[in-house]
Amino acid sequence: MDRILTALNLHKKLRGKLEIKSKISLSNRKNLSLMYTPGVAEAVKSIQNDPEQVNNITIKNNTIAVITDGSAVLGLGNVGAEAALPVMEGKCAIFKEFAQINAFPICLKSQNVEEIVMCVKNISPVFAAINLEDISAPRCFEIERKLQNLDIPVMHDDQHATAIVVLAGLINAVSVVNNDLKKCKTVITGVGAAGTAVAKLLGFYGLKNIILVDSKGIISNKRNNLEGYKKDLLLFTNKDNQTGNLIHAAKNADILIGVSQKRIFTKDIIQNLNDNAIVFALANPDPEITAVNAKKWGVAVYANGRSDNINQVNNALVFPGFFKGLIQKRITNITSKMKVNAAIALASLIKNPTSKRFIPAIFDKRIVSAIAGSITGNA
Amino acid sequence: MDRILTALNLHKKLRGKLEIKSKISLSNRKNLSLMYTPGVAEAVKSIQNDPEQVNNITIKNNTIAVITDGSAVLGLGNVGAEAALPVMEGKCAIFKEFAQINAFPICLKSQNVEEIVMCVKNISPVFAAINLEDISAPRCFEIERKLQNLDIPVMHDDQHATAIVVLAGLINAVSVVNNDLKKCKTVITGVGAAGTAVAKLLGFYGLKNIILVDSKGIISNKRNNLEGYKKDLLLFTNKDNQTGNLIHAAKNADILIGVSQKRIFTKDIIQNLNDNAIVFALANPDPEITAVNAKKWGVAVYANGRSDNINQVNNALVFPGFFKGLIQKRITNITSKMKVNAAIALASLIKNPTSKRFIPAIFDKRIVSAIAGSITGNA
Repeated sequence: MDRILTALNLHKKLRGKLEIKSKISLSNRKNLSLMYTPGVAEAVKSIQNDPEQVNNITIKNNTIAVITDGSAVLGLGNVGAEAALPVMEGKCAIFKEFAQINAFPICLKSQNVEEIVMCVKNISPVFAAINLEDISAPRCFEIERKLQNLDIPVMHDDQHATAIVVLAGLINAVSVVNNDLKKCKTVITGVGAAGTAVAKLLGFYGLKNIILVDSKGIISNKRNNLEGYKKDLLLFTNKDNQTGNLIHAAKNADILIGVSQKRIFTKDIIQNLNDNAIVFALANPDPEITAVNAKKWGVAVYANGRSDNINQVNNALVFPGFFKGLIQKRITNITSKMKVNAAIALASLIKNPTSKRFIPAIFDKRIVSAIAGSITGNA
Repeated sequence: MDRILTALNLHKKLRGKLEIKSKISLSNRKNLSLMYTPGVAEAVKSIQNDPEQVNNITIKNNTIAVITDGSAVLGLGNVGAEAALPVMEGKCAIFKEFAQINAFPICLKSQNVEEIVMCVKNISPVFAAINLEDISAPRCFEIERKLQNLDIPVMHDDQHATAIVVLAGLINAVSVVNNDLKKCKTVITGVGAAGTAVAKLLGFYGLKNIILVDSKGIISNKRNNLEGYKKDLLLFTNKDNQTGNLIHAAKNADILIGVSQKRIFTKDIIQNLNDNAIVFALANPDPEITAVNAKKWGVAVYANGRSDNINQVNNALVFPGFFKGLIQKRITNITSKMKVNAAIALASLIKNPTSKRFIPAIFDKRIVSAIAGSITGNA
């Protein structure tokens, strides 16, 4: 209760987390003449004559839009545009704090794919990149795909930054328990934006035994009325065509990743896992299993997504550096290889992983430059 | 040349005039937990439970969007979204400097009315008000009209703030030359967004003898193929149905207002005006007539729109305070009476107008509170 009051009270006190400032004072006629009329006309003409100049003389070079429709906010669901705003502001504040990138929140009233695509295209001239955020599956896949022909990078962070941080965490976690990641039986609960992207990146990395579980059970060919994007995941997951619920999927699994709902990892499920199991409980704000229960029930390596947990597997470790690399290098085509490189760069910051510390803290100053530095146009 | 180099160089050095900052440092786990996950979830839930809270705990309460499609930028015309950005940034910087309002520039790729309306509606949840900017006529009228049903105020600043500052300037300028504003023959050149709004507000204020002149001559019933919005202006202008060019219109005029193109007020035109003529040459960055020529050719009271001129008749004197009043009082319906009240409030800051000083300098700290204070919901 104290935590709840404190967070809300702080939000009330601040009345918004962000502030937009002028880099230069306009309180005298000279600066005003240079920055506004008449001087600003020279900047306009310069871009008219050479469109590339917009990247040199405006905010575009270092400004990102954090765009949501409020349809899948944290683990809270479809809260709508207005209620999503505090989260988007938080993301923008993180961009600035950790990567010195200016970011502005755009919360869209519409949840229609075509309208969202059109709005994002239309507002793109001001931005160096678009961070799509908290948009529900499967619309998020379609929206992201339809925006790939913009002249700036467009990335749905919940998918890809989550996938990158999970892969980074797993690379180090398996070394703690002395396992081979590519051979681990890996179960992912939650087959929305994050679960889908995590599965795809782990599959690309080389994991052979991945099982996905949604609220109706294991994703298998035997399921009726499976959505198209879930069917596509069967191309590289559940090769033995297992069926059943999470408790069946968990049997002899080495890795259990939750991107689903609070408290669904019960004692029975955890005890079905192999010895030395790795559990990432990433539902936010309330994880699938608490750190206390994970320890009590014998999990070897545990992480959740919260800022108050030591091993925090949260996309916030990734997106500042990943976007910084993209915009610094003016890369518009984001590849799976780039994501793997970013995960390896992040994981390698912990030289000797232990269950107590296998993922760097978000405050580790090396993270952003390591991830940004890992990004190259030919990956 | 020096001025040109200085303005461009300063733009290059700054790489964007605006910066987005977090009001609170996120460099420790406690603040991050409060402002991002898990604490931010409490802010989300608070807005879900009571939508009004978005005005108390997010940036919405004090953030304005400055939105353009780049179709009518300064006097430079249809420069497009990217080239418009330096001007929009300048406006945003002015909002902060003069009214402590956060403002963010949105430059839209589309110049299609329906698409613009849809984008503005969709991004509105983040903002307390929408400042439409540098959109060409007649699309600007339609766009503004179609956005009047939003739950936040939407104002095309080039129309209304320009009209307000012109009216304020004229109220004081006629007292310098001891004339009666309502009886003055007033000629307005340029019948785009600004010219139309100036004519309408002067008409509403009570001026009986207004003549509008566009690039083809005097707006009259005898003109063929007159656009619809120009026809509408004949309801209260050019009652004698005069025809001809600017030089004919200027004959015996007391007031000449240019919101058109540089250097079109020639010596012949100026000498056709009545004695003690008032000339506002508001084309930006290059006015219809320079201060030097105006003086040489006998203009009694002169203003232009430039920041380097003493009597600056520029919407920048109005929009910070006008929007501040609107958002402080949560007013969505903007009336002509409100605009007149704002003009009177602005004019009244100069107690004894002279030709040397009849409009307050933009740096006059009283302006914003005077205009904001003039705005009431029942005007």
